Amino acid sequence: MIVQMTSGATTQQIDHVVERATAMGFDTLLNVGTDKTVVAILGSRTGEVSTDVFAVLAGVDTVTRIMKPYKLASREFHKELSLVPLGGLDVGGERLVMIAGPCAVESETQMLRAAEAVKAAGANALRGGAYKPRTSPFAFQGLAEDGLDILARARAETGLPVVTEVVDPHHVEQIVRYADVLQVGARNMQNYTLLREVGRSGHTVILKRGLSSTINEWLTAADYILAEGNDRVILCERGIRTFETSTRFTLDVSSIAVVKRYSHLPVIVDPSHAAGHFRYVPTLARAAVAAGADGLIVEVHPNPEEALSDGIQSLTFENFDQLMAELRPIARAVGRELSSASEQDKVGVV
Amino acid sequence: MIVQMTSGATTQQIDHVVERATAMGFDTLLNVGTDKTVVAILGSRTGEVSTDVFAVLAGVDTVTRIMKPYKLASREFHKELSLVPLGGLDVGGERLVMIAGPCAVESETQMLRAAEAVKAAGANALRGGAYKPRTSPFAFQGLAEDGLDILARARAETGLPVVTEVVDPHHVEQIVRYADVLQVGARNMQNYTLLREVGRSGHTVILKRGLSSTINEWLTAADYILAEGNDRVILCERGIRTFETSTRFTLDVSSIAVVKRYSHLPVIVDPSHAAGHFRYVPTLARAAVAAGADGLIVEVHPNPEEALSDGIQSLTFENFDQLMAELRPIARAVGRELSSASEQDKVGVV
Amino acid sequence: MIVQMTSGATTQQIDHVVERATAMGFDTLLNVGTDKTVVAILGSRTGEVSTDVFAVLAGVDTVTRIMKPYKLASREFHKELSLVPLGGLDVGGERLVMIAGPCAVESETQMLRAAEAVKAAGANALRGGAYKPRTSPFAFQGLAEDGLDILARARAETGLPVVTEVVDPHHVEQIVRYADVLQVGARNMQNYTLLREVGRSGHTVILKRGLSSTINEWLTAADYILAEGNDRVILCERGIRTFETSTRFTLDVSSIAVVKRYSHLPVIVDPSHAAGHFRYVPTLARAAVAAGADGLIVEVHPNPEEALSDGIQSLTFENFDQLMAELRPIARAVGRELSSASEQDKVGVV
Amino acid sequence: MIVQMTSGATTQQIDHVVERATAMGFDTLLNVGTDKTVVAILGSRTGEVSTDVFAVLAGVDTVTRIMKPYKLASREFHKELSLVPLGGLDVGGERLVMIAGPCAVESETQMLRAAEAVKAAGANALRGGAYKPRTSPFAFQGLAEDGLDILARARAETGLPVVTEVVDPHHVEQIVRYADVLQVGARNMQNYTLLREVGRSGHTVILKRGLSSTINEWLTAADYILAEGNDRVILCERGIRTFETSTRFTLDVSSIAVVKRYSHLPVIVDPSHAAGHFRYVPTLARAAVAAGADGLIVEVHPNPEEALSDGIQSLTFENFDQLMAELRPIARAVGRELSSASEQDKVGVV
Repeated sequence: MIVQMTSGATTQQIDHVVERATAMGFDTLLNVGTDKTVVAILGSRTGEVSTDVFAVLAGVDTVTRIMKPYKLASREFHKELSLVPLGGLDVGGERLVMIAGPCAVESETQMLRAAEAVKAAGANALRGGAYKPRTSPFAFQGLAEDGLDILARARAETGLPVVTEVVDPHHVEQIVRYADVLQVGARNMQNYTLLREVGRSGHTVILKRGLSSTINEWLTAADYILAEGNDRVILCERGIRTFETSTRFTLDVSSIAVVKRYSHLPVIVDPSHAAGHFRYVPTLARAAVAAGADGLIVEVHPNPEEALSDGIQSLTFENFDQLMAELRPIARAVGRELSSASEQDKVGVV
Repeated sequence: MIVQMTSGATTQQIDHVVERATAMGFDTLLNVGTDKTVVAILGSRTGEVSTDVFAVLAGVDTVTRIMKPYKLASREFHKELSLVPLGGLDVGGERLVMIAGPCAVESETQMLRAAEAVKAAGANALRGGAYKPRTSPFAFQGLAEDGLDILARARAETGLPVVTEVVDPHHVEQIVRYADVLQVGARNMQNYTLLREVGRSGHTVILKRGLSSTINEWLTAADYILAEGNDRVILCERGIRTFETSTRFTLDVSSIAVVKRYSHLPVIVDPSHAAGHFRYVPTLARAAVAAGADGLIVEVHPNPEEALSDGIQSLTFENFDQLMAELRPIARAVGRELSSASEQDKVGVV
Repeated sequence: MIVQMTSGATTQQIDHVVERATAMGFDTLLNVGTDKTVVAILGSRTGEVSTDVFAVLAGVDTVTRIMKPYKLASREFHKELSLVPLGGLDVGGERLVMIAGPCAVESETQMLRAAEAVKAAGANALRGGAYKPRTSPFAFQGLAEDGLDILARARAETGLPVVTEVVDPHHVEQIVRYADVLQVGARNMQNYTLLREVGRSGHTVILKRGLSSTINEWLTAADYILAEGNDRVILCERGIRTFETSTRFTLDVSSIAVVKRYSHLPVIVDPSHAAGHFRYVPTLARAAVAAGADGLIVEVHPNPEEALSDGIQSLTFENFDQLMAELRPIARAVGRELSSASEQDKVGVV
Repeated sequence: MIVQMTSGATTQQIDHVVERATAMGFDTLLNVGTDKTVVAILGSRTGEVSTDVFAVLAGVDTVTRIMKPYKLASREFHKELSLVPLGGLDVGGERLVMIAGPCAVESETQMLRAAEAVKAAGANALRGGAYKPRTSPFAFQGLAEDGLDILARARAETGLPVVTEVVDPHHVEQIVRYADVLQVGARNMQNYTLLREVGRSGHTVILKRGLSSTINEWLTAADYILAEGNDRVILCERGIRTFETSTRFTLDVSSIAVVKRYSHLPVIVDPSHAAGHFRYVPTLARAAVAAGADGLIVEVHPNPEEALSDGIQSLTFENFDQLMAELRPIARAVGRELSSASEQDKVGVV
């Protein structure tokens, strides 16, 4: 941490900064420049300390962090890239994970049809929400446990592992009985009670990036899950909020490269929520695979026109088939591969 | 809702839009222009319907919402400005509410000293967090129920009503036994389970604006609380995330005027979190009062240098006294008033 | 344009809106709803009219634009995708255009070495700035006409067409004597005097997206050039400003799909300025090609460590060779192709 | 500047960083920590050097700037707050400057009526645009020199100094013959050719903040003008671009406090462009004065409904009178004052 004193800072003020750092067990390095004094505070644990601890002291102008604020998610902590098991796959390995299915579980027929279709196209896992966080209190809020039950039946039929969102820490215990992967949505990325609870579950977790979260904040949120001893964390980039309104969010495709540089965790992309319109989903999906994402989570619905939520961003079965066909050569071009339908018969949870 | 068809849309596609709207009980108005067909979908309930319902249909180019997505928080629904009781005050009335105190409850001594000091300066309520949502899992997370107990004692000593944050829906029942006002933090503005639970409590709620939430989303989140029959909702602007980094967030002072135009709910401002530095707090506080905010919530700490969280943005007692003195003539200039210390002896919860 | 009246709007106010629209030659369609009156203003020319013309009238609540604010850049105006000649290529066609070279022209040796290297790797054009817009007045500002002269010599040696930035409308006449393509930088996207001047030149123009410009504003800026009768406009996405700071800007890869939907103009991507760090350039370049960009403009320098500007985001010759190799299979996967070095001997301006 | 090396950086790489810094005349301070080596590069001139110079070197992870990138605009360079003369006022002093008038000069009648009205209400200067930068090429672009001539006549009649926008560096010579103050608009904040030219003019300049410019970039742009020897620079906050769309831009009221902390230049606020709607202008104006702005620039039009540009954000004469009345007690509350109409008869340029 670099503490820059104001021009008129007194010796006593400078000493106070050094004393506080020393008391916290850090080394310091002082430079009394012609213009300004700068105190460098050193030690690997400085990342865990808020810059405020020094910024608040008299005579301090600014404090700049050198160490990242996250630790367990960092490649400094864990140099090798992590592989996270999901069904028969290792997410983060050569084979990309393709998670597909409806936004919300609406009925058994809907989910079974979707599960069979996405499996046939080569998807590795089925998505579907039983608890839906909706912007408006008047919108469809999900089927709750009935929805989980339908998901479990779709899994039994197809062998596809099931991904579903958890919105309440007190649902975790229930959901892990039905689902293989717990998804933490963007609006809950800093719901710390929830992060700790999914951490304690030991289940694989998909942690979506908050819609206005920096990559540093996202990886620090991952630390909450990892700190509970659960290292099965998959990050998911799903677009950030910007001033541009022609897409629902702005997919930050660069975040894939930044995450790969600083974290060992695998990262997948949700092109559906980023785009907000099915028409743009294939473009974002292709970009994500080319950029090195470890997989995708895509909304696919038997009949988007009748979907109870997010129909506008859902692909039809045909769209999804076509997308998979488009993605295969791109995946190969970057040294990755997608599962084929016939392989899907051999993998899965059953 | 205005549905604009693509240039090449067929009659059948246009008819399908009209049929769907009719089936939902809406009136429609069709204009077959020389360039494009536009279908207007009319009715007061269109605000509750997602634009996606029409955007997903074949031949549709764009769908534009006319009605606001919120209802209960809207002035269309409730023309008179609402007054929300807090201690002896009606928030939203002529007298501004000043809520002050430390970020986190750290000890009984700290809270009692703070409570007495802010009361003496003219504050109407005491703030203090017992459950702290912290970016890093390694940071101080609050004293939990012990903290609530300290708050209750500070209230008993000073008569100041107590405001505290709730981060877990399952804490609501506990917290209402100790505190007068439940605060929903910015990171939980779309934690819908939590919103419903504080709605059911019937307690006064301060709903902070999410750090990247539009005003529409904020008011729609308020609808979640109001929909439970709890009309004691106070909105709180606390700065939004932008590209500017010289302050922690960017106080959106304009939001006060926008909220007053479209909603009946009172709105206060948190200059401490917006600024992120005590040095800028008075500027933002003055701007907020001049802009017509119904009150402020300000971080004040006996010794900011030793604060366990947010010391950097906390005022000392002297700073707070001085701020109150600065605000009095500004409040008068806009037809409002602040409580004085002597008045404080007569109001309160005891 | 859809004019929504306030709840209490009078008949006279509504009539006034209709009269004004009629006076401007538009048709109107009125709906006197139970809640609110809505006036639809219709006609293909409404895109050229500011919404303010109606928003300012008494009794009006909001005005929503239906037609896009741009016209000449729109696919409604020109359904077929445009091909823009650059050297021997048609930008927007099957073959991607690869423009590469240093940020700034520093010396003849530097430019000749760069030109030969990028040509050998398969680039179709050479970039280099003679007039540099720099954030600080104390930074290197470019070699001016000496730089243009060096560019012309590099072109003579290699046959590569030359792309250079124009920052002052009064330089256009000079620059077109040396360069093949005029680049308008992000900070000048709304420098209308400059847009008109490059429009009048008839030269091919690369129009970079402003760093906080919406796609609508970008296409409207293109209208300034097109309105002068110059249809040789290539758009260039180069990242937008967001709250994320781990990359210099956030590449809006979605904009490629949006531009392709609404405009006939070709769109290329500048991964160097978006990333701000050479390490992330290949990721963004791959994503851009997979997303359907019509080409790239990439910073390549003989010795990035010694570059007078933007060294941090420049590729070495080896990096660029490797990038071209990585891009070839991705281009093929999306039905496009890159030039090879041997082909380059046959094309070009000489 | 703080250079953080990567974990595996070699001694040779570290030495190379030190050598480069030394060669540039800087002192260095090295800390070989247990985790990472950090090189501090020291000297007051480091603010003028791009961080890229070091970031590009092998083995470097990140480079963090300590010195501000601007110099002449900095309070470190010039501790006393500057006063900038405008008409008979010193902008930055106790008396606030109120600049008011139409967006665009439309006719002599319009300007004379506006000039008399705003003078009568207590304004100190008249605004009006003769060259208008418009988003669309099809919109009204201003009366050019005829407009300047009208401005000069309005000045002759009323004695009010005249503020007008300059959009082309080659217009400066012409405009200074008619106007007292040159305004550089937000879209031209980084039009460096223009900045230099207004710098050379020696005329008072109002430099608007770019709509997505950080405060650092804004002050660095001011350095371009100051570096030409022109110290008559007034900054103008006019709102920044964010995700919020209920106002045209988001007024960054905090920037007033940040500018006052780091720069000696006066700063005024344009509530009209920030709000984008006349209804919100008074709120923003009051907030700006309470926050410590040195003045305001407000759009006022004899008949906003008929304005050729920006009518929606223009106040009527009555609105402006009322605003002035509202602002007087707020100004007094913060130790400032507004001119009265009768005082206006004694000041001015004639």
